[in-house]
Amino acid sequence: MGGMKASTGLSRLSTALIVLDRDSPRSHKQAVAFPASTEEVSRIVRAAAAHRTPIVPFGAGTSLEGHVAALRGGICLDMSRMNKVLEVNPEDMDCWVQAGVTRKQLDEHLRDTGLASGTAAVRYGTMKDNVRSLTVVLPDGSVTRTGRRVRKSSAGYDLTALFVGSEGTLGVITEVSLRLFGVPEAAAAAVCTFPDMKSAVDTATLVMQSGIPVARIELMDELQADAINKYSHTQLALAPTLFFEFHGSPAAVKEAAEAAGAIAADLGGADFQWADKEEERRKLWSARHSAYYAARALRPGGNGLITDVCVPLSRLTECVLEAQRLCKAHGLLAPLVGHVGDSNFHMLLIIDPTNAEELARAHRAVDDLVHLAQDVGGTCTGEHGIGHGKLCHLEREHGLPALQAMHGIKQALDPFNIMNPGKLGSDPAGFAAAAHIDDVVA
Amino acid sequence: MGGMKASTGLSRLSTALIVLDRDSPRSHKQAVAFPASTEEVSRIVRAAAAHRTPIVPFGAGTSLEGHVAALRGGICLDMSRMNKVLEVNPEDMDCWVQAGVTRKQLDEHLRDTGLASGTAAVRYGTMKDNVRSLTVVLPDGSVTRTGRRVRKSSAGYDLTALFVGSEGTLGVITEVSLRLFGVPEAAAAAVCTFPDMKSAVDTATLVMQSGIPVARIELMDELQADAINKYSHTQLALAPTLFFEFHGSPAAVKEAAEAAGAIAADLGGADFQWADKEEERRKLWSARHSAYYAARALRPGGNGLITDVCVPLSRLTECVLEAQRLCKAHGLLAPLVGHVGDSNFHMLLIIDPTNAEELARAHRAVDDLVHLAQDVGGTCTGEHGIGHGKLCHLEREHGLPALQAMHGIKQALDPFNIMNPGKLGSDPAGFAAAAHIDDVVA
Repeated sequence: MGGMKASTGLSRLSTALIVLDRDSPRSHKQAVAFPASTEEVSRIVRAAAAHRTPIVPFGAGTSLEGHVAALRGGICLDMSRMNKVLEVNPEDMDCWVQAGVTRKQLDEHLRDTGLASGTAAVRYGTMKDNVRSLTVVLPDGSVTRTGRRVRKSSAGYDLTALFVGSEGTLGVITEVSLRLFGVPEAAAAAVCTFPDMKSAVDTATLVMQSGIPVARIELMDELQADAINKYSHTQLALAPTLFFEFHGSPAAVKEAAEAAGAIAADLGGADFQWADKEEERRKLWSARHSAYYAARALRPGGNGLITDVCVPLSRLTECVLEAQRLCKAHGLLAPLVGHVGDSNFHMLLIIDPTNAEELARAHRAVDDLVHLAQDVGGTCTGEHGIGHGKLCHLEREHGLPALQAMHGIKQALDPFNIMNPGKLGSDPAGFAAAAHIDDVVA
Repeated sequence: MGGMKASTGLSRLSTALIVLDRDSPRSHKQAVAFPASTEEVSRIVRAAAAHRTPIVPFGAGTSLEGHVAALRGGICLDMSRMNKVLEVNPEDMDCWVQAGVTRKQLDEHLRDTGLASGTAAVRYGTMKDNVRSLTVVLPDGSVTRTGRRVRKSSAGYDLTALFVGSEGTLGVITEVSLRLFGVPEAAAAAVCTFPDMKSAVDTATLVMQSGIPVARIELMDELQADAINKYSHTQLALAPTLFFEFHGSPAAVKEAAEAAGAIAADLGGADFQWADKEEERRKLWSARHSAYYAARALRPGGNGLITDVCVPLSRLTECVLEAQRLCKAHGLLAPLVGHVGDSNFHMLLIIDPTNAEELARAHRAVDDLVHLAQDVGGTCTGEHGIGHGKLCHLEREHGLPALQAMHGIKQALDPFNIMNPGKLGSDPAGFAAAAHIDDVVA
């Protein structure tokens, strides 16, 4: 790598480039670069392409399936210096940000504009739905901008949608144009407990089927509520619980909350406990967002293995109950949290990483949960993606022709296979060799 | 073709297959097949692939840019027999339909379910946003299902989004899973006239920027209002006009309508004229939907050349005014209709197809309008697509690297270039040769 740096002009980059002294057994990255602009990424990729050196983009580090493991060595592109909000267009309700900007940074930047990024997927769609355009450095180092900063376009293949979720295997996303939303005139959050999981999930399902305009509905089981109480010093009841949030005009919020409350009451839910004030709501969601760390804290030294299935709404209740039963049958400690407005839920398997037998049991449970979801028409991953750890589930979900199409796309755009190799778009014939994720990163 | 039919087993298909007697100068299709199932499409494509025979899928026939012109001969796949609603899942608010099902057929089928397809893009998103999954016959005849019938998935490249809008160039879409929506509890439509175009478009822009929940906002100019009056026997005022529609609870509809009405009044709009009743609303929208035929009827023997630009919301007013000025400067009769809630509008250039000079002027106007939109960050096509007629505008919009990426994807999925050749995904080096659409189909 040192030789490459000297010979390709990378040394002239303002980009910080750390050449690692040794290969770590967990990660085979040979160097980490910290580019600050699309142009710097382009120069790095161009040099890497000339040397057939793999490139592994690293964003906020939230991936859970070994997405950023450098399976074949190469350069890790740490995007943390690409943290600038480039422009905010209040009149178009959109913005351009560099790819390293986090949700919190963006919302901080927008604080006085009356705009917010849409993070409640039930109401605003997922992040994918809110990306209007991308700047992408292609695997040969050339730079392209996908789509246009407009609400509708039919001008060619939808490259924006292709690159979002491609996990660094087709190019490096350096800039993102995002839809923004007006901060709602009113917002209210409520917590509602239930005598059992079935009535909680049935309530969420019915609220969605009734078309009641909710911003979010989150589910947790009593084990997770207990974990959050211990971790965040809250006083949640130890019961299956739904968290609701409503956005809109004051009248619309009131109307939606009453309609949801009536369904909950019909199914045995307790009265809504309200968090009207901004600060109360923040506290509530902050506790919810800590769910993963809270769950891990249930078992000192424990590690989390997280499932991420998403199923058709009509099958949600049965899948949640069956998922709980399966984890119990496998003898695993597994709190549940769910973005149930989207029919997406996570079992947080808390395991002892040093216990090979328990790890094997956990992997069997993950396989069972994935098959459960796939068998009712669902997916192995609603939001966390494939990385390296879920490659083995793709053929069962999509079939060989779809995987061959993905492989063809990968080969067409990245003929030297330098972009995050060994992940999405790999030859499906090699998927069987994709080991469980803990073999790559623990 | 007759020989191919006999030798490949196509004669054993239940598929009606019409072998055309002669090449027409307008269309070089050599045969038209009427498949009734995915399996029949697969057999036809497999046979065509073996003989390197082009396949041109033909849906509802709404395309305007020569999408279905058989530039290199081959088999036209007429999807009109694939008109079955395969399943409706009320509990999941989605359905599976064959690709030949029209919006009207689907809504007729859904009539008693309390569900509807979301055709008001401002509220429900475009059709693209509402496609959950597709059955696609790939160019080698293999069959795949893209994505899953769920609200969220991150399991691999988004092939659903890639195939939607690919205009038959990557495979044949045979079945579509669509999101459905609850029929709103209340709906109301209103018409509002303005003293000039600027105040009308500014009103639409401000309503959108205020986040008022409208289902649609449509714009027409006084020329289009006149055309509709003559064609549909309505009594629209001859003035720039906005059509609004609001969906929701009765209280939400009232609140939204009042908020929009206040903005319109501030900008000089007349009082809203309401069409509360279902029948009045239908009549109103039916008149609006006849806009194209009404415009053509302004000039007996006239043909329509339609532009389809979409621009950032903040630039909408200036672009609408400049578009009108440009058409006038080119001496063209050009009513305007706009899906202005989406910043998308059409100039309907009504021309004498036998007048070569006028046609040339019209094409210069189209080029000017496309450049106008592209120069403010907009697109040459919001919804009509590229076909053959707009290929020449793609490089200016996306740049060469993006077009090369599209070409690479096309080659990867369709190595023998049999799927609707000469359209999207073609080698960008050949785009200059893409003639204006009237050279292909008049």
